[in-house]
Amino acid sequence: MLSGPSGAGKGTVVKEYARRYSDVFVSISATTRDPREGEKHGVNYFFITDEEFDKMKNENGFLEYADFCEHKYGTPRENAEKALNEGKDVILEIEVQGAFKVKENRPDAVLVFTVPPSYEILRERLIGRGTESMEVIEKRLNRAMEEIKLAPRYDYLIINDTVDKAVEDLRAIFDAEKCKINNNIDFIKEF
Amino acid sequence: MLSGPSGAGKGTVVKEYARRYSDVFVSISATTRDPREGEKHGVNYFFITDEEFDKMKNENGFLEYADFCEHKYGTPRENAEKALNEGKDVILEIEVQGAFKVKENRPDAVLVFTVPPSYEILRERLIGRGTESMEVIEKRLNRAMEEIKLAPRYDYLIINDTVDKAVEDLRAIFDAEKCKINNNIDFIKEF
Repeated sequence: MLSGPSGAGKGTVVKEYARRYSDVFVSISATTRDPREGEKHGVNYFFITDEEFDKMKNENGFLEYADFCEHKYGTPRENAEKALNEGKDVILEIEVQGAFKVKENRPDAVLVFTVPPSYEILRERLIGRGTESMEVIEKRLNRAMEEIKLAPRYDYLIINDTVDKAVEDLRAIFDAEKCKINNNIDFIKEF
Repeated sequence: MLSGPSGAGKGTVVKEYARRYSDVFVSISATTRDPREGEKHGVNYFFITDEEFDKMKNENGFLEYADFCEHKYGTPRENAEKALNEGKDVILEIEVQGAFKVKENRPDAVLVFTVPPSYEILRERLIGRGTESMEVIEKRLNRAMEEIKLAPRYDYLIINDTVDKAVEDLRAIFDAEKCKINNNIDFIKEF
């Protein structure tokens, strides 16, 4: 699970990760918010209505769901579980409260938090994006600082300075997690 | 700290790791056992006498030391601490009891256990080495199985099938450990 404030560059990292490594399934979240410029349904998000969201929720179709800045976000269950069963790695790009909810149900899930190299750079990135009003940006910055306070409850931190380094850090985390003793107890017993 | 039974290929993995990655200091252990064919003083081990070993021990010159198959092994303190202070990664190739002793003093140290892909392959490797009598080999196999029982107390397991994969797993562990939240708390606070 990859979390981090808006402006941390999660989307770019995940996209480049999936380009380099084919053994991963990237979960696509559902949201009731409007698409930003360039965002596509089924690529960046499943953009759905409030009614569609509630229907999926009632049918246990989400691994987790949460409200965030007036909009609803959810992680569709079916595709992620199918990929896991096929032996793929799964990335959930997910906000903080959602991540904690998934962790409760899947203690083996790994929590990765991403931040820009500094607060100043976060601010610049949000302003530079040019798609939001200053009011929205300030709101996102405040929200970001609230989220970052929860980062110590995560397993890992990736400082997203360059995309290349962030992607390779994420790869290292996947590889190292597969070496974790707890994921190899059966092998040790068999040996 | 990299442990694993004789025949797990620790030495080969460490040597190849150091060849690929220059940001590491590989600690060289001191031992009172005789060099095997091809082993060199100051490269594979510092081959020292019982008297020299005891002198270093008494002068607090070891991070840890242990008896093993009638011989003494120790990890010289000075070079490792110097490398850490210079910001390098440090690899200690170390047997199980020694690893636990270092871990007591350095809870931030990371325990990595290495094994061949199967017991049968371990046995073949030990026999194939051709440098030991069957009696010594059986003794090493028994010892190996005792050590492997302690692997669940380690942090990671590397299954040494190919040297390339084992080296990259070890690299991933170094990289992922640097991303561990506990190693980034100061950054989060500063942010």
